[in-house]
Amino acid sequence: MANNFKEPSVDEINQVMQQAQTAFEAYQKTSVEEKSVFLETIANEIEALGEDLLQKASEETNLPLPRLAGERARTTGQLRMFAGMLREGSWVEATIDTALPDRTPLPKPDLRKMLVPLGPVVVFGASNFPFAYSTAGGDTASALAGGCSVVVKAHPAHAETSEMVYSAIKKAIAACNMPEHIFQHVHGTSFESGRALVQADDTAAVGFTGSTAGGLALLQYSSQRKKPIPVFSEMGSTNPVVFLPDTLNKNAAELAALYTGSITLGMGQFCTNPGLMLAVESESVHNFINLLGDGIEGVKPAKMLHAGIHAAYQKKSAAALEQVGVTEINRSATEASDIEASPVVATVSGEAFLQNPLLHEEVFGPYSLMVICHDEAELIKVLKSVSGQLTTTVMGTDNDFANHAALLQLLPSIAGRVLFNGVPTGVEVCASMVHGGPFPATTDSRFTAVGINSVKRWVRPVCFQNCPDNLLPLALQQGNPLGIWRLFDGDWKK
Amino acid sequence: MANNFKEPSVDEINQVMQQAQTAFEAYQKTSVEEKSVFLETIANEIEALGEDLLQKASEETNLPLPRLAGERARTTGQLRMFAGMLREGSWVEATIDTALPDRTPLPKPDLRKMLVPLGPVVVFGASNFPFAYSTAGGDTASALAGGCSVVVKAHPAHAETSEMVYSAIKKAIAACNMPEHIFQHVHGTSFESGRALVQADDTAAVGFTGSTAGGLALLQYSSQRKKPIPVFSEMGSTNPVVFLPDTLNKNAAELAALYTGSITLGMGQFCTNPGLMLAVESESVHNFINLLGDGIEGVKPAKMLHAGIHAAYQKKSAAALEQVGVTEINRSATEASDIEASPVVATVSGEAFLQNPLLHEEVFGPYSLMVICHDEAELIKVLKSVSGQLTTTVMGTDNDFANHAALLQLLPSIAGRVLFNGVPTGVEVCASMVHGGPFPATTDSRFTAVGINSVKRWVRPVCFQNCPDNLLPLALQQGNPLGIWRLFDGDWKK
Repeated sequence: MANNFKEPSVDEINQVMQQAQTAFEAYQKTSVEEKSVFLETIANEIEALGEDLLQKASEETNLPLPRLAGERARTTGQLRMFAGMLREGSWVEATIDTALPDRTPLPKPDLRKMLVPLGPVVVFGASNFPFAYSTAGGDTASALAGGCSVVVKAHPAHAETSEMVYSAIKKAIAACNMPEHIFQHVHGTSFESGRALVQADDTAAVGFTGSTAGGLALLQYSSQRKKPIPVFSEMGSTNPVVFLPDTLNKNAAELAALYTGSITLGMGQFCTNPGLMLAVESESVHNFINLLGDGIEGVKPAKMLHAGIHAAYQKKSAAALEQVGVTEINRSATEASDIEASPVVATVSGEAFLQNPLLHEEVFGPYSLMVICHDEAELIKVLKSVSGQLTTTVMGTDNDFANHAALLQLLPSIAGRVLFNGVPTGVEVCASMVHGGPFPATTDSRFTAVGINSVKRWVRPVCFQNCPDNLLPLALQQGNPLGIWRLFDGDWKK
Repeated sequence: MANNFKEPSVDEINQVMQQAQTAFEAYQKTSVEEKSVFLETIANEIEALGEDLLQKASEETNLPLPRLAGERARTTGQLRMFAGMLREGSWVEATIDTALPDRTPLPKPDLRKMLVPLGPVVVFGASNFPFAYSTAGGDTASALAGGCSVVVKAHPAHAETSEMVYSAIKKAIAACNMPEHIFQHVHGTSFESGRALVQADDTAAVGFTGSTAGGLALLQYSSQRKKPIPVFSEMGSTNPVVFLPDTLNKNAAELAALYTGSITLGMGQFCTNPGLMLAVESESVHNFINLLGDGIEGVKPAKMLHAGIHAAYQKKSAAALEQVGVTEINRSATEASDIEASPVVATVSGEAFLQNPLLHEEVFGPYSLMVICHDEAELIKVLKSVSGQLTTTVMGTDNDFANHAALLQLLPSIAGRVLFNGVPTGVEVCASMVHGGPFPATTDSRFTAVGINSVKRWVRPVCFQNCPDNLLPLALQQGNPLGIWRLFDGDWKK
C-alpha cells in the first residue's frame, strides 16, 4: 500500500525511539493533573480540526461522515475517560501492608506497591477505525495515561488523516508544555519499518490492531529481540453467535432484523462482526435464515475501506462459498460495482464445517455463515473447534437457557466477552469491558484493548520496602493525599 | 544432571498435558470452598511427611535442617494464604457497570467482568528452594488457586524430595475428591523434556524460576509455538545496594554486620542476594569495606546446593576476581574443601565496571562486588547500566536521602522492589510484594512471582454482557452472594 510519505530508515526509527525514551523520562516528572489536562487538550484539539478531519478520513477510508463523527466522539471520549481515570487514581492499584515490628521469628517490613509505566510504547493502528483505534486511539490514550511515551506508525490506508490527528497532538504538546517527543508519528509501508520499530532497543511494548498475519509478524519480530517486551496484538475473530431453539421459534423475524443490521454494519468491517452463526437443525432455523437472507437482500453494496480489503473480501468470501457443503442463502439484490462489497449469508452443516479449516477463518466484511448442527453435542464440538474469540453470543429465551446449561458453561472458555440476546458489534468503553480473548483473537488473553483496564498492558508493579513516608509516591503515602481507593492491610479504603 | 528417574518421551508428555486439560475442565466445576480445602489439605499432607521430608531435602540440597523447616513453613503458609485469598474472593477483580437503558444515542448494556483461569500451567521449580519455589511452591499454589491444573517438572537436583511432596499432593487429591490429574509430576533432565512441556498443544502457561539460560530457553521454545502462551521466567539478579555517605560515616560497623549476614545467608544462594554494592569514593567506604571483609573472613565455607552450582560459583567468582581493576578485599579465613564455597568480597572502580560486561553478570553464591565510583553521576551511570533487577536497595540517613533526590527517583525504574535501609534477602509473602522486575530479572515485569498477585499470571478477564442474573458466576450476581469487594459502578463495595 503506497502513499505520499517517505519511508524512514532503520537509523531514523532508532533515533525516534531514543527520543521517545528521553521524553518518557521527562514525562515521569509531570503531575497527574498535568497528564489529565494533556489528554483533554488532545481531545479538544482533535475537535478543533472540525469537519476537515471527517472529510479527509471519509476520502481515505470510504466511511460515511455520520459514522466518522460518532467515531471521533468515541475517540475524544476515551481521551477524557483516561483523564478521569488519572484524577480518580485507583488504577495504580495502590496496595499497602503496614509493618509488624513485633512479629516473630522476624519482624514484618512496611511494603507498599503501585503501578508504574514501562517506557516507550509503539502503536500500530487499525485500518477500520481511523480515529478510535488509530493515531490518538485507545492504545495511544491508555499508554499516555499510564505514563508512557508513544510512537505511532501511521496506517498507510489513512496516512493523511493520521497526519492531521498528529498535528492536533503536537498542538496539545506545545500548549501543555509536555516533552516534545512524548508522542511521535512515523510513516512507512514496509515490513522493515514495522520490524525496526518492534526491535529498537528503546521500545518497551507494542500495541497492534489488525490482521492475524500482521499481528503474528510483530510477535515474531519481538521474539528475535535480546530483551523480551510485551506485544499485544488484537487480530479479530469470527464472533460465533448461538441461536437456541425456543427463541428461533418465537422471535425469528426480530432476530433476522437484528442480525441483518449487525452483519452489515459498517460493511461488516468490525473485528466484532458476527461472521459465524450456530444452531441445531430445525424448521425454525431455516425460517430464520430465510428471513435473514431477505434482510441481507435489501442491504445495498458499498465501498470498503480500501482496495486491498475489498480484494481480500472478494477472494475470501468467494472461496468460502465454493467449499463443499456451503450453500449461499442470499445476497444483496443490488449489483455491486467493481469496488463495492456485496453482503452475503450462507449455510453449512456442522459436519462439513468441522472438516474444513478454511471455513474457520475470518472473512472480513459483510459475510456470515450459519452452521447447522445435528444436535447440541455437535454444536458444542463446533464451538470448541473455533475457540479463541473476542466475543461469543447466545440468543435464547429463559426456557432456552434453562435447557442448555452445558453450552452456557462453555462460552466463557472461548472468548473475552460473552453476550446474551444482543449483537457483538458495538464495544462499550468502560471498566468492565473486555475487548480481548484467547489466541488467535489476541496474542495475550490476560489483557483488554478497550476500557480503562487497557492501561494495564503498559505498566508494571513496583514495591517500596520500609520507604520513609516523604519519599514515597503520593499514591502510597500514609495520609493518602490523593484520596484514592487503596487496598490497605487487606481492606479497600479511601 | 542425572538421577534415578526415567526420562519421559515427547508422547508421554503430550499425554500428561492432555490429562491436565481434562482435569482443568473438571476442576472448574469445583467450588471456591472445595478449592480452598484442597490447598489446605496439601499443606497438611506436606506437614504430615514430618522430619523425613526435611532429611531427604537436606541430603539432596545440602541445606541445613532449620533452614528447610523454615522454608517448609513458608510453603505451607503460602498454600493456606491462597486458600484464604479464595475465600476472601476479591482477587477475581469483579467489576460491574450496570445498564443505562435510557442513554442516548444508544442504551448502555449491563457489563460484568471477572478473572477466569487460563488452563494447564507447567511449572519448572528452582534448585535453591526445594519447597517454596518448587513442587508445591508459589507457582503451583497460585495456579491451583487460580483454577488451573498444574504439571511440575521435578528439579533433577532434588528429584526425590519432589517425589515426596508429590505423594502429599496425591493424598490431598484423593482426600478432597479432586480430578485425578489436577496436579501431575514428571521427571526429566534433558532439554527435550523441557521443550516438549512448553510446546505441548494443551499447555496454557509456563512458570520458571532459575538461571538466565534456562529461562530464556523456555521463552525461545514458546516462541516456536503456533499458539503463543505466557511464559513467566524469574531469572535472578545482582540486586545492587547503594550506600550513601552519611550512613557510611556514621554506621559502618552496623552496615558491615548486616551485609556480612545478607551476602552469606544460605551461602548466597538466593536470587535476591546482594551481589553488587555501590558507593562514591571516600574514606568511609574503605572503612566499611574493610569491616565487611573482616565479617566475611569470619564466615565458614559450606557446601553449595549441588556440584553444578558449586562448579559454576568457583568458575564465575574466580573469573570476576581476575578482571582488570578488581581487588579482592577478603575471603573466609577457613580453607574450603573441594566441594565447599568460600565467601568473598571485592572492589572495583566505577570506570572499570562500566567497561566490563562480565562484571555485570550474577555470580550465584556468597560473593559481592563493591563498585567505588568517582562521583554520584558515575554511580547513576553504573545503576542505569545494570537495570533489570528484582530488587535495589539504598542505605542512608534522612540527611543522605535529602541530598540524593535524583538517585532515589531512578531506583523504581530499574527494579521490581526498592528497599530502604534493609537487606534484599527475605521476601515477605503478601499482597503488596513484588518479586519480579524488568528484564533480565524476569521475562515479564508486569507480574510478580510472590504474594497473592502471583495468581494474575494464570488468569484472564471475561466480560458478561446483559447476562441474566441467575446465569452469572456468583462473584458477579447483583446481590453479591459471596460478599466480596467489587468495583460497582466505579466504587469499591462489599
